[in-house]
Parts: sequence; structure tokens; C-alpha cells
Amino acid sequence: MQTVTVDLDTRSYPIHIGAGLLGAAGHWTPCLGSRVMIVTNTVLAELHLAPVQAALQGRDFETLILPDGEATKTLASAERIWDALLAARFGRDASLIALGGGVTGDLTGFAAACYQRGIDFIQMPTTLLAQVDSSVGGKTGVNHPRGKNMIGAFHQPRCVIADLDTLGTLPERELRAGLAEVIKYGLIADAAFFAWLEAHLDALLAREPAALSHAIAVSCRTKAAIVTADERESGVRALLNLGHTFGHAIETGTGYGTWLHGEAVATGMVMAAELSARLGRVPSATVERIRRLIDRAGLPVTAPRGLDAGRFLELMAVDKKAQAGRLRLVLLRAIGEAELRSDTDPGVLRALLDQFPRGP
Amino acid sequence: MQTVTVDLDTRSYPIHIGAGLLGAAGHWTPCLGSRVMIVTNTVLAELHLAPVQAALQGRDFETLILPDGEATKTLASAERIWDALLAARFGRDASLIALGGGVTGDLTGFAAACYQRGIDFIQMPTTLLAQVDSSVGGKTGVNHPRGKNMIGAFHQPRCVIADLDTLGTLPERELRAGLAEVIKYGLIADAAFFAWLEAHLDALLAREPAALSHAIAVSCRTKAAIVTADERESGVRALLNLGHTFGHAIETGTGYGTWLHGEAVATGMVMAAELSARLGRVPSATVERIRRLIDRAGLPVTAPRGLDAGRFLELMAVDKKAQAGRLRLVLLRAIGEAELRSDTDPGVLRALLDQFPRGP
Repeated sequence: MQTVTVDLDTRSYPIHIGAGLLGAAGHWTPCLGSRVMIVTNTVLAELHLAPVQAALQGRDFETLILPDGEATKTLASAERIWDALLAARFGRDASLIALGGGVTGDLTGFAAACYQRGIDFIQMPTTLLAQVDSSVGGKTGVNHPRGKNMIGAFHQPRCVIADLDTLGTLPERELRAGLAEVIKYGLIADAAFFAWLEAHLDALLAREPAALSHAIAVSCRTKAAIVTADERESGVRALLNLGHTFGHAIETGTGYGTWLHGEAVATGMVMAAELSARLGRVPSATVERIRRLIDRAGLPVTAPRGLDAGRFLELMAVDKKAQAGRLRLVLLRAIGEAELRSDTDPGVLRALLDQFPRGP
Repeated sequence: MQTVTVDLDTRSYPIHIGAGLLGAAGHWTPCLGSRVMIVTNTVLAELHLAPVQAALQGRDFETLILPDGEATKTLASAERIWDALLAARFGRDASLIALGGGVTGDLTGFAAACYQRGIDFIQMPTTLLAQVDSSVGGKTGVNHPRGKNMIGAFHQPRCVIADLDTLGTLPERELRAGLAEVIKYGLIADAAFFAWLEAHLDALLAREPAALSHAIAVSCRTKAAIVTADERESGVRALLNLGHTFGHAIETGTGYGTWLHGEAVATGMVMAAELSARLGRVPSATVERIRRLIDRAGLPVTAPRGLDAGRFLELMAVDKKAQAGRLRLVLLRAIGEAELRSDTDPGVLRALLDQFPRGP
């Protein structure tokens, strides 16, 4: 087992990474309050609920199983959790366990953040994406018909249990989508890790535990360092959004769920790299190196056919990262070095969106 | 104008107390973001919206007018605010203004806390209760059919504008209800202020601005000191709940809105004082002194007729302040000195609830 600590004063917490952790009660039951509610979904309940419930034997706990999928990440689902907590008369000393991917984690974290103004929760992320991204940093929330994650809170978990066994049952497409965020950490902060990924991509795709464990630990450590420096996303944390402004536009423009988040971010990172090159900030060889790794990971490197430049711009402007009308974009200066800019020439952006290759 | 500062590091904020402040843009427009939404209710919109809107002339602002009353303090109302913010494409740099009583402040504060994971808001409390209580401390939230304030967040305002002019239009009953919380500050922390209240109660009931201004400033300063010491209510902040566990039981047991919050707290404080006396912690003369001031303020000093001891206990146990089954109660050691106790003899409590006088 490896442990990465997210250092946030009194709200610091450990991320434990290893095999068999869901059933290893000693690693996470000390984080729990006197009463516990496991929140999971129908798919995960089949696959990985049993060891968690077994580890809780003898404790006062309930289980709430919600439908699987992004459509569940709504205020109405948060209300279901609150209703269940109140029906069971859970008090402020109760804890939630989020067993699932990013949807379950974000939704359950938000429910914990707002129940009686905040109760504890722990994350048990079961996808690679959730293990390296959404379980680190305390962002919680639900979607609104007008935009993703529009309603939410910052609320840190007490601990995160990243059990490698859960990746064994992950569909191939979701594993690849998770790798997009892993690659992102190399791009924004760690050139050596990017090179390691180029060397070990096949091991990761083959789900070799040692490779996965290393990739998750480095990713979490990088994100943790950034979150520690900027818990509320006023500065450096925005770098984590590399590829995300383009990516969100793709997700919204194609209808949520058509593209996986990681797939949209993958193309978004290629777009951000290409834009950086057009602005003279990186050589085109760097763009090619990035495109190649993303392509080898089985991730898309072209934009959706139906999304023209005008629609792209429209969707990017409503993104949360737009401030007072100026579009803020994360651009690259090199592999391992990113920067937030608000001064992108609109003409260059427009040309990129016009000319960026559209997918098959 | 008097100013009380709530000292919370980077989230510190001023409470300005005085006449004519709603129209005095210089005191509060610097706290606002680039876009502004005023949230108020139908009654306040008639009475006090005009000066606020006039002060915002030339800025980009919207106004959302909700129904008046506790029934508006729901998740559905928070959704109305979020829908309006998203429809107007407000970003993270937007601010909300809560113009109204505690319902408007708690609801709007909660909407601000969760919109895009937190935007700024300022409070313009228009009731005495909201000026001395709900606008200080960052508690925000909405009610759930199973309990008050069950869904919420801690979110500090950027500033609070307590305009004494708004108290001129306050119904008599609400003024008296606000005085209950003012008296509470004397009871839990400040014997000299309690004595001042005994001497100046008539001036307060006559709404003399100098007396009101002093009472509000002392109350806010006391609450601010307690909140600073314990922002998240893990310790001393619980003292602010003097009378509230009994009071919440009365509010719930009689159906929200039958008793005003301050009225329920008034009786609750007499009950807490009486319980303290029965436990040998204060002399019965102290209870009489408290009962007399509350009675002179035109507030109830008896419990509702329909609420027997069994129902009281049932309602008190579901209160948020109940921890792991043990009932935590704020008791008095003297006027000006309160203490949180979890060891109250259940028999003594039961006897108090059986024997406490029921109302006319």
C-alpha cells in the first residue's frame, strides 16, 4: 500500500492506494463517525459492496443504492440522500461513504457538505478517473440542466481509499478515460512523469498493479500539492483545468454522456497544446508528442464533427472559468509546465477552432 | 454609524449599524462582485428595495422577489435562485444581496454557498432577529419537512448592513421576538448588558434609535466573539443555543410559523433557567429575574398547552444538538454565564417538562 497525504491543516487526509483495501477495515473505519451510510450505485453494489459491508459488521450502518450514471448527479439525488439520512435520524456525528466513480463521489460529498451544514465522508473511488482526480481536492457538486457542477461545495473527505481491485472490473473505455487525467498531470507539472508514461503506457493498459499504483500515487501527489497551495481555486489550481474548457464544451455540445469526461479532456488537451503552438509558446514537435501519447492511450485526438467554431466559443464562454467576459485558458509553455492566460488573441482561438481536425 | 468586525482571518467582515445605510452605497458596494442579484421578498420589496436599487444604479444587477415567510425557506427556493443566476449567466465573480429577515438571509446565503461552489454575498437584515443573530456567524441553510435548517452550509457574508430604518416598519410582534435573542446574549455572556436591558427595555420597545443601535452592536459583538472562537460550532458556539433545544421542540411541535422563533426561544430560555435551578445551579431568584424581563418584553414565558413532556422529549432528541443519543443542553450558572452539559439527569428534565406552566 502507498499513502499520499493531502496537507490542509486540520482538514488534512490520507489517500491509501493498494489492493484489497475495501475489505481492510483497519485502514478506514477509524475515519468514521458513530453512524454510517454507504452511498453507491447499482453496478458497484453488485461488484464491490460486499467487502465494505463485511468490514462494517457490528457497526450501525445503512446502504443507499442509486442508479448508475451521470444522470444521477442531480439535486434530486442529493435530496434522496438527505431524506434517507433524516428518515434514519442521522445526526451531525454520522459519516457517509461514497463507493463509486466520480458521480457517486461528487454527489455524496455534496450531500455530506450540506447535511446539517457538513458531516464527514470518506471516498472509495472505483474508477481510475475518480482515483486520480475527483477524490482529491474536496470539490463536490451536482449538475444543473444549464451546466455541469453548477451547484456544489468545497468539502474535504476524511480519507480516500483507492482500491486497485476495483480497476479490475472497470470497462476498458473508462480505464482509458482515466488515463487522460493521468497524462494531464505529466503535462502541467512533471515532465519526467510524462516520459515515464510514454515508457509504461502498455503496462497501464494491461492493468499491471505496480504501474497503476505508481501512476495513481504520482497523480494524487501532484494534485494534492496543487490543492494544498490553493484550496479554493483562486490561482494555481486552475492549471488542473488544462483541456477542460475545450473538454466541457465538447461534453455539453454533444450532450452529456456521449463523450466520457476523460475523452473530452483528452481532445481538449490536444487543442490546448495546439493553441499554445499557434501562439508560439511551444514547438509543434511538442504538440505531436502529446498527441501521440494520447492516441496510443486509445483516446480521441479530434473534435466532434458537429461542433463548429461558433458553437464551441458559445459553450466555452458559459464555462465557470470565464471571468467577467474574459476567457481564461490553461496553455502550455513546455511538457511539465502550464500557465493560466486571459489574453489569448480571439482570432488565433477562432482559427484553431475552425481548423482543428474533426473526428471520424 | 457603528461598526462591529467579525474576525475570521481572510473571511473577516464588518457589520455596519445605523440609519439610512441601505441607500448609502459607499458602505457596501465595494463588497460586491462585477454582477449582482438582489434576493428579497414581496413585503420587503414594497418597503425597502428602492434605496438599494437606487444605490446600484449604473451597475449590472438583477432583482429576484420571492414569497414572504418561513415556507419559502426550502431547497425549491434555492433552486429558483440558482435557475435565475444561470439564466442570467452569472459567473463566480457575481454577488448576491440578501435583503430581508432571517429566511431571506439563510436562503440566499445557502444559494451563494453552493452556486458554483461558493460566490460572495452580503446581508441586509431587515428584522431585529436577523440583525443580531442570523446575519452573524455564517450559518446558512434551508428547512426540510423533517426539520429546520437541516440542509445548509457555513458561508460568511462579505459585509452586513443593519439599517435601523428597516426596524421602523417591523411588526411589533417581530420586534419583541428579536429582543428574545438580544436578552440571550446578556444571559450567556454579559451580566452588565442584561442589567442594561432591564433599564432600557422601554426605550427598545419604543424603538429609540440610540438604544436599538447599542443593543444590536453589543449583541453582534458578543456573537462575533463566540463565532471567532469557534467558527464551526464544535465547542463554545453551542452556548448560542441557550433556549433553542426547547425552542425548536416548541416550533416543531406547534407547526412552524405558529410561534415565532424568538418567541419559542424566549420560553425555551425560561425553561433552561428553570432546569438550571432544579439542578441546583442557579437560585430561583435568578429564574424569576429572567422570567420578568422576558415577560416585560411581551414574550411568552409558558409552554404551549398541547405539548406534553413525552412529545417534548421526542422532539428534542431529533434536534441537531443531540449527539449520539446524549442530549446536550445549554444551562446557566449565573446571569452572564452559560455552560454546555450532556449529563442532565433525565428524571429532572422529565419533571421540568411535566410541571413547566402551559400557556393561556
